[in-house]
Amino acid sequence: MAEFMDIHHGMKGITAEQLREAHNADLAIEGQENVHFTRAWADPDAGDVFCLSEAPSAEAVQRVHERAGHKADEIHPVPLTI
Amino acid sequence: MAEFMDIHHGMKGITAEQLREAHNADLAIEGQENVHFTRAWADPDAGDVFCLSEAPSAEAVQRVHERAGHKADEIHPVPLTI
Repeated sequence: MAEFMDIHHGMKGITAEQLREAHNADLAIEGQENVHFTRAWADPDAGDVFCLSEAPSAEAVQRVHERAGHKADEIHPVPLTI
Repeated sequence: MAEFMDIHHGMKGITAEQLREAHNADLAIEGQENVHFTRAWADPDAGDVFCLSEAPSAEAVQRVHERAGHKADEIHPVPLTI
């Protein structure tokens, strides 16, 4: 398993409830791809959402996000962490 | 205190040791600005580094990064977190 940071743009005005709902939608199906979304952060002014996950591949992360209705704009493998 | 996600571009090929050194340089002086850098992740292939911090402002985050020799390209307040 590797760690990934993915980014969604265009989410201006996202609320805490919407972030929670989107995260829960990921959690509900992440097991299909052996992915686990561990954290998420949102900047509602810029419209950027950052998701941290453990997953077998970036493609697996994207498949979960797509099925949950919110495809990521960037998915970064982050093999170096502190 | 608020939470911030900042991003550094142009770090292609960054190593674990370089990430650790850069993070330690931040930690050594972060107290000057009442900032605390809590996590960092690097994608050496894309050259992107993500830093998570608690700080009084984005400007305080940037002052620490600048003094440590690595100005951030983006600093996002992330008031919504999971």
